[in-house]
Amino acid sequence: MTGIRGVLLDLDGVLYVGNDLLPGAREALARLRERRLPVQFVTNSTRRPRRAIQAGLSAMGLNLGDDELVTPARAACTWLGERRLSPHLLIHPDLREDFNGLSSPDAEEPVDRPANRAVVVGDAGEGFTYEALNRAFRLLMEGAPFLALAKNRYFREVDGLSLDAGPFVAALEFAGGVTAEVVGKPAPGFFHAAVTALGCEPAEAVMVGDDVEADVGGAIAAGLQGILVETGKFRVEDRARLHRHGVLVRDIGAAIDRILAAA
Amino acid sequence: MTGIRGVLLDLDGVLYVGNDLLPGAREALARLRERRLPVQFVTNSTRRPRRAIQAGLSAMGLNLGDDELVTPARAACTWLGERRLSPHLLIHPDLREDFNGLSSPDAEEPVDRPANRAVVVGDAGEGFTYEALNRAFRLLMEGAPFLALAKNRYFREVDGLSLDAGPFVAALEFAGGVTAEVVGKPAPGFFHAAVTALGCEPAEAVMVGDDVEADVGGAIAAGLQGILVETGKFRVEDRARLHRHGVLVRDIGAAIDRILAAA
Repeated sequence: MTGIRGVLLDLDGVLYVGNDLLPGAREALARLRERRLPVQFVTNSTRRPRRAIQAGLSAMGLNLGDDELVTPARAACTWLGERRLSPHLLIHPDLREDFNGLSSPDAEEPVDRPANRAVVVGDAGEGFTYEALNRAFRLLMEGAPFLALAKNRYFREVDGLSLDAGPFVAALEFAGGVTAEVVGKPAPGFFHAAVTALGCEPAEAVMVGDDVEADVGGAIAAGLQGILVETGKFRVEDRARLHRHGVLVRDIGAAIDRILAAA
Repeated sequence: MTGIRGVLLDLDGVLYVGNDLLPGAREALARLRERRLPVQFVTNSTRRPRRAIQAGLSAMGLNLGDDELVTPARAACTWLGERRLSPHLLIHPDLREDFNGLSSPDAEEPVDRPANRAVVVGDAGEGFTYEALNRAFRLLMEGAPFLALAKNRYFREVDGLSLDAGPFVAALEFAGGVTAEVVGKPAPGFFHAAVTALGCEPAEAVMVGDDVEADVGGAIAAGLQGILVETGKFRVEDRARLHRHGVLVRDIGAAIDRILAAA
């Protein structure tokens, strides 16, 4: 690693798990701030709105500016706005506020006006009922565009691994015979928007994450550098799946050590 | 088509939709019985047990022997028995009775003994909750074998198309990074078991179905002949997807005309 001028940090599994900061996370971030390296927090989590993510970080003693947080919901609003589409939302109810700017019909509304309606899927959690999935499926079969906030396979909860949005996106893709447009990681456009905010070139930015595919593989494919931490959803099998240009470290503290040495 | 000595008939979408016989179904079946052509009823439906399928057919005036009905649940019991595996069932509650012969722990049981436990997925309908899917996912991540009763994309209900087991199998495959073993159509072994019951060679058997992939494509790939009917889940787009050796007819009546002319 060399020539680092900006840092992208994943949140869940890198800085914290559940409501608990990971050991060394606060100190690592403080060292990054001291060196005045630009940082953007880049999450694929779609269970909570921006407001709640920032409040949660603040409660753990981490403060970040509104312009430092990159979420798939924000990217989706841009995507929908450019195409003048209104969303049929299959997302966690808490996330709805991040779509408030758009004309967003209620998910309970009968499927009667598929025109100009895009199916938008995030990590709906318990909201992934058969009925809700079937409603989205029928819209896809009528030709509605399909936007996935993310396609992560799973994330780590306190009691074990849990299904993320990806499997449900895959289910609807299989059912409808279609492919979703993914706006979150590993979409290159998502990384590039964050790098633009850093004010450097992609090759000068490094992404730190616990997802060997969406975080590290995606960043490297988008022309960034990548570091995989062994916390969060990391599993030992991921070592064999790490991109040959990816760097493997124990945790966020070790990642920041490597970054500061290369900045 | 030529040299037909046995017939495989799909049920839902071919003979009936919901609780209603399709026009001409009863007469078509009567003509087949008159000619004494061996017939097997081959369904991928996994929402109802054998008993209920037969009772439903009987209520519509169609009677078939217990040895004339081939279901994925029966094939799954054979598969599990041969491997001395007990099933973790993610299926419709009504179907549980078809697994009664096996030691079948309750789905609510905590995930504590993954060894010798296979994840078995059918069309669970409303039973496909986030929690139930997550429980199956965690077993797969611990290495449990993965058996799919079927992998159909959707079926036709009275009010429209609805998600079948396939999308949920695809979801768990994506989440777990694994591939399910499918026992129902289009698995060649499923067709071959039915053909053995007919007492003829695969090339002398014809499958009649409304699913261009699982019924017709699967049968032809297994060495049988195949007829697609334009009832049930059939959509006009399916014409372009029909195998070049497949025959397209309007409905079951027209299918039986073609079969009797080639028998």
